[in-house]
Amino acid sequence: MEDRLAVIDVGSNSFRLVVFTSTEHWWKRTDEIHESVRVGEGLDAAGELQPEPMERALETLELYAHFCRATGIERVRPVATSAIRDAGNQAEFLRAARQRSGLDVEVLPGEEEARYGYLAAVNSTTLEDGVVLDLGGGSMQLTRVRGRRAAEARSWPLGAVRMTERFFNGGAAKRKQLKALREHVAAELEAAPWLADGGRMAGIGGTVRNLAAAAQLAAGLPSYGIQGFRLTRDALGELIGELAAMTPAERGKVAGIKSERGDLILAGALVVEAVMEAAGYDDLEATEAGLREGVFFETLLGDPPLFEDVRVASVHNLAAQYHADFAHTNHVAQLALEMWDALAAQGVHRGDAEERDLLWAAAMLHDIGVAVDYDDHHKHSRYLILNAGLPGYSPRESALIGQAARYHRKGTPGLGEFAPLARAGDAEMLDRLSAILRLAEQLERSRDQAVHATDVDVHDGSVELRLHASEDVTIARWAAERQGDLFRRAFGRDLSVSA
Amino acid sequence: MEDRLAVIDVGSNSFRLVVFTSTEHWWKRTDEIHESVRVGEGLDAAGELQPEPMERALETLELYAHFCRATGIERVRPVATSAIRDAGNQAEFLRAARQRSGLDVEVLPGEEEARYGYLAAVNSTTLEDGVVLDLGGGSMQLTRVRGRRAAEARSWPLGAVRMTERFFNGGAAKRKQLKALREHVAAELEAAPWLADGGRMAGIGGTVRNLAAAAQLAAGLPSYGIQGFRLTRDALGELIGELAAMTPAERGKVAGIKSERGDLILAGALVVEAVMEAAGYDDLEATEAGLREGVFFETLLGDPPLFEDVRVASVHNLAAQYHADFAHTNHVAQLALEMWDALAAQGVHRGDAEERDLLWAAAMLHDIGVAVDYDDHHKHSRYLILNAGLPGYSPRESALIGQAARYHRKGTPGLGEFAPLARAGDAEMLDRLSAILRLAEQLERSRDQAVHATDVDVHDGSVELRLHASEDVTIARWAAERQGDLFRRAFGRDLSVSA
Repeated sequence: MEDRLAVIDVGSNSFRLVVFTSTEHWWKRTDEIHESVRVGEGLDAAGELQPEPMERALETLELYAHFCRATGIERVRPVATSAIRDAGNQAEFLRAARQRSGLDVEVLPGEEEARYGYLAAVNSTTLEDGVVLDLGGGSMQLTRVRGRRAAEARSWPLGAVRMTERFFNGGAAKRKQLKALREHVAAELEAAPWLADGGRMAGIGGTVRNLAAAAQLAAGLPSYGIQGFRLTRDALGELIGELAAMTPAERGKVAGIKSERGDLILAGALVVEAVMEAAGYDDLEATEAGLREGVFFETLLGDPPLFEDVRVASVHNLAAQYHADFAHTNHVAQLALEMWDALAAQGVHRGDAEERDLLWAAAMLHDIGVAVDYDDHHKHSRYLILNAGLPGYSPRESALIGQAARYHRKGTPGLGEFAPLARAGDAEMLDRLSAILRLAEQLERSRDQAVHATDVDVHDGSVELRLHASEDVTIARWAAERQGDLFRRAFGRDLSVSA
Repeated sequence: MEDRLAVIDVGSNSFRLVVFTSTEHWWKRTDEIHESVRVGEGLDAAGELQPEPMERALETLELYAHFCRATGIERVRPVATSAIRDAGNQAEFLRAARQRSGLDVEVLPGEEEARYGYLAAVNSTTLEDGVVLDLGGGSMQLTRVRGRRAAEARSWPLGAVRMTERFFNGGAAKRKQLKALREHVAAELEAAPWLADGGRMAGIGGTVRNLAAAAQLAAGLPSYGIQGFRLTRDALGELIGELAAMTPAERGKVAGIKSERGDLILAGALVVEAVMEAAGYDDLEATEAGLREGVFFETLLGDPPLFEDVRVASVHNLAAQYHADFAHTNHVAQLALEMWDALAAQGVHRGDAEERDLLWAAAMLHDIGVAVDYDDHHKHSRYLILNAGLPGYSPRESALIGQAARYHRKGTPGLGEFAPLARAGDAEMLDRLSAILRLAEQLERSRDQAVHATDVDVHDGSVELRLHASEDVTIARWAAERQGDLFRRAFGRDLSVSA
């Protein structure tokens, strides 16, 4: 049974209808209609929604309502943020929206908006303590997170559209304008002394996504979305320098910045920078999730609406989407971890906790590519891992998981296009991940969990793998032994397999 | 409800267990275990299966039986071909197989084997009249096809393993050996005067797949499998020249040739060449399908076990696998064809039948990438189209369908990496496909089929698109008009849209 929820984000800069589909086992976004409506255009000066933006907004809501009716989506949750919240003619807009589209738009108070941004961030990153920044077109929300719970939250009218209209007037930015905007934000942030209480920072919203994408491309990194990317204050400072010297149209042509955001990106970047400065963070973890996901997670999850473990939830979600054979993948994961642990205990490798986590994820996901085609399914698994994404993992970690899945059957493991993301020792780690995963896969070749456990004996220069099985496992032994070359490369020892 | 059938191909060179999963709407291979068993090793000289190959065969059957039990597959169909068919100790082998694996292996007579090869070929290509070549390790089958029906069929003991053992002895090939093998095959083929009755030729089996892959790579073409690739006699002749000068081990390192096939590929290539020569064909269409698919198609389809239209079946199969919204995609396809037809009728383009077929396929498949991730789903659609494959379409046609899907939302259409496959005019065709598809998609943006039909009026230098709708379609009109730039590029005319 598939449940569908359409969340309509009536934002100050853009409107977005997002359809979330979920079953007992998985969830994902299955549809989206994005419109750069700019309903907040001119609002700051006049205090009211202007006729043209309002008409654009109503037409877009009509489109969304049509869409939901046509596709049979019954649960629709339209939520409005800053622009509608602050408009003098809010009631008129809500009435017209109801009349023309049948939609009852719910206006979120600032704290509610902050709460959904917080839920989006803590359910798509591993943030435990720190600050969530949510920068929209009209407002900015900051939430202080302690032990994954929201401890403080506040909304400011410091959105990218508002700041652009107030401090810039087209053309390249003047030094005076930059200074004025920075001072304005810094002064506003004095109301939040809890900002500088340590931890890490995560950021959501279109401004953050565009800045992260631009920094990722500028650094020459492979890009499969910005999930988990760390935008450093240095990289942000450099970007701001470049953007300030350009016209708004030129800014929209910078790789990573969407053209319709060219005029807003500079003001947005300055606000983000000012927050990082006030809070004392050197980097900001970007996430693809946003307000919409926050609303959805509240519906999907219990109370508190938090995944128990974001990484585990991401891996299970992806595996279930592609109908993985859980009996097989769970057993491959169990065998892989068992062998890895035993080798660590006997000093064959260091037993790094991150490496263990990546091994588990790769084992759970190694076969998902069969959903594309059986041939080359190891390559398709990598494609799906990298493109569908694994919230909670950094781009480097996702790449390592993808590469380990890529090499779970054959080929000589290598970092390939992901080398620019790697740290020292990652190539060797990938050898170990691939060697263990391939061994576990071969032991489970008959898919019957006949090899129920293993143990290892480490001799001088060689490793003896002993299989525990309730029946004849000649084939498993023979298949596993054929992995000797890669094992030697990864662990510097010969492998023998006995039953 | 998913049905599963495991076909076990007990071949002379390799054994293969293939699991086919099917529902009312789609089918695909979901698992496979391939072993290079070489059960026929030494058979020709001794007339009997030798002890070591027999033991390898029995162990592999045990593995397959384990696998089927463990994964709960109840319908298992093990079929044996040439090696078992011709072995003096066949009965002993079948008894041992039953005893050790519980599998009742069915030995196919030569005509039955030919029939399954024929079913595989005519259900995965558009072959109407011509010859199907099925070259295995032990035997070769040729079938004369007339109006998609098998008119004549015959099996010869000319398989790649047999020919290798008989005519070669390791090392580079001598001219005398090549000549002897060619003469032997030519003499055998005199028994089939129907070979040279015209039409086209399609080929199945590992030898053909490896040769096609090698020729594709040698020509510098992008490779997403060899489905529909035309191997020319010229390219085959060049390959043979290169392979003959190499040792068997070197042949296994040629790009496209699997290492375990290095010693067999030359003899196989010579047999294929001799058949093309005897039949008078300049090229051979390769297909990924094989005996296993033939057995499966007989179970899946009615009587006759033929897809009514292979291309239509492929497109529907792929669309259904990825849960396409058929109401939407069918309507996009209908609108796209309607506009394309109307523009052709009024002389705006030539109205080429192949182009129309590609437009339909791209329309039906444009959204399948949502199964990977909503973000960039246009790119994922291309990935799935190219990697899952579309039997019945050539690599060039699949690439055009994939690129049209890639550009169904945004971007400037281009052939990209597929340029080496293109013919003159393909870049312009892609512009037209993308422009029409994008227009249809925008008209169906609300997913409610509100725009139920269109017609066009061609003026001097401009096209007026009129929408027929039962309700207000301001948004569709407005969205469609934004596609004016691409339309002008594709058709050299301005676009206006009225309701």
